[in-house]
Amino acid sequence: METPKRRRSATRARLLEGALEVFAERGFHGASVEDICDRAGFTRGAFYSNFASKDELVLALFQATTDRLLEQIAALLPDLANQPGTLLDAVLGLLDEAAPDQRQWHLISTEFTLHALRHPEAAAALNLQRAMFRDQLTRLVEEITRASGLQMSVPPQQFVRLVIAVHEGARAQSLLEPDLVPAGSLEHTFLPLVLDAVSSRT
Amino acid sequence: METPKRRRSATRARLLEGALEVFAERGFHGASVEDICDRAGFTRGAFYSNFASKDELVLALFQATTDRLLEQIAALLPDLANQPGTLLDAVLGLLDEAAPDQRQWHLISTEFTLHALRHPEAAAALNLQRAMFRDQLTRLVEEITRASGLQMSVPPQQFVRLVIAVHEGARAQSLLEPDLVPAGSLEHTFLPLVLDAVSSRT
Repeated sequence: METPKRRRSATRARLLEGALEVFAERGFHGASVEDICDRAGFTRGAFYSNFASKDELVLALFQATTDRLLEQIAALLPDLANQPGTLLDAVLGLLDEAAPDQRQWHLISTEFTLHALRHPEAAAALNLQRAMFRDQLTRLVEEITRASGLQMSVPPQQFVRLVIAVHEGARAQSLLEPDLVPAGSLEHTFLPLVLDAVSSRT
Repeated sequence: METPKRRRSATRARLLEGALEVFAERGFHGASVEDICDRAGFTRGAFYSNFASKDELVLALFQATTDRLLEQIAALLPDLANQPGTLLDAVLGLLDEAAPDQRQWHLISTEFTLHALRHPEAAAALNLQRAMFRDQLTRLVEEITRASGLQMSVPPQQFVRLVIAVHEGARAQSLLEPDLVPAGSLEHTFLPLVLDAVSSRT
């Protein structure tokens, strides 16, 4: 039976999905709340009963994607917690699959970052969300190094920042030149080398 | 004495400088040719006698910045060609100084990359320019490894791609959280480790 709560959650999901497409086509600034509602087949009332603003919708998109990713990583842990190299490769694979469409995802996440660089309120909200995501990844890295009897020569938080930087920087290159830079290739080539260089047996 | 050629070059320089400011304020799409001319104190005629379009102006901005960077790197070579680690640190420092204002530079270069992801013609022009820049950096890496008697376990071109990916990805983090991620900190922490991991004495 469809409960009001379940209906509300389906509405949110369809709005998020429609927004991702509209943002990719028209850009974060070019896409209006009306465009998003038209695409998802809802009224503006439905939009505003779910999100206070376009900013809030984008942050909800980020949250949904990072939640999914963290769940997928957690599912790998029981088998791979003591094999950091294999786990890192698996996590890098998940990073490329966490968003249903890497191009759409890159467009909106990069555009919102630029928006944040011009609007302190958006920056505060984005930074808070990114910090929570990094903290959860950092805890995973700490758990894994403990389980594998490894010690890192850099703060795990810094290693997580590097993984994110390489992933975001490499994604731009992969999207610009997909034939020359297959998705994930720079990450898979270099990040295991870094992990190895900063890890030692305790 | 001011020659027509020198005057033309000064006009270009002022247009480029004005454009960088206007792009940072209004975005690549929000800034019109008129806005750029107003800022630089020229007519639209002056603009179009120097650039066919906004796209062409942005590519000229990129070219000027990468030319300056390559010149600065070349100036370091005589002293540091056989000290790859020191040279890498120096080059990373130059990357942060090549543009007069990192925030403005990040905004326009990222926005133009997004524009290219939506417009194949812009992508072709941008890719060509980025390829030339990478090729010149790759030749430098080859020269340095030769001079230092080193061999790399990855193609030098891949290492150059990684440096660019880390730099571009880390710059977004530095601009969002300048207190937590000082400019260049991720690059200086991790890239020398990578260089070391992929280099061996011949």
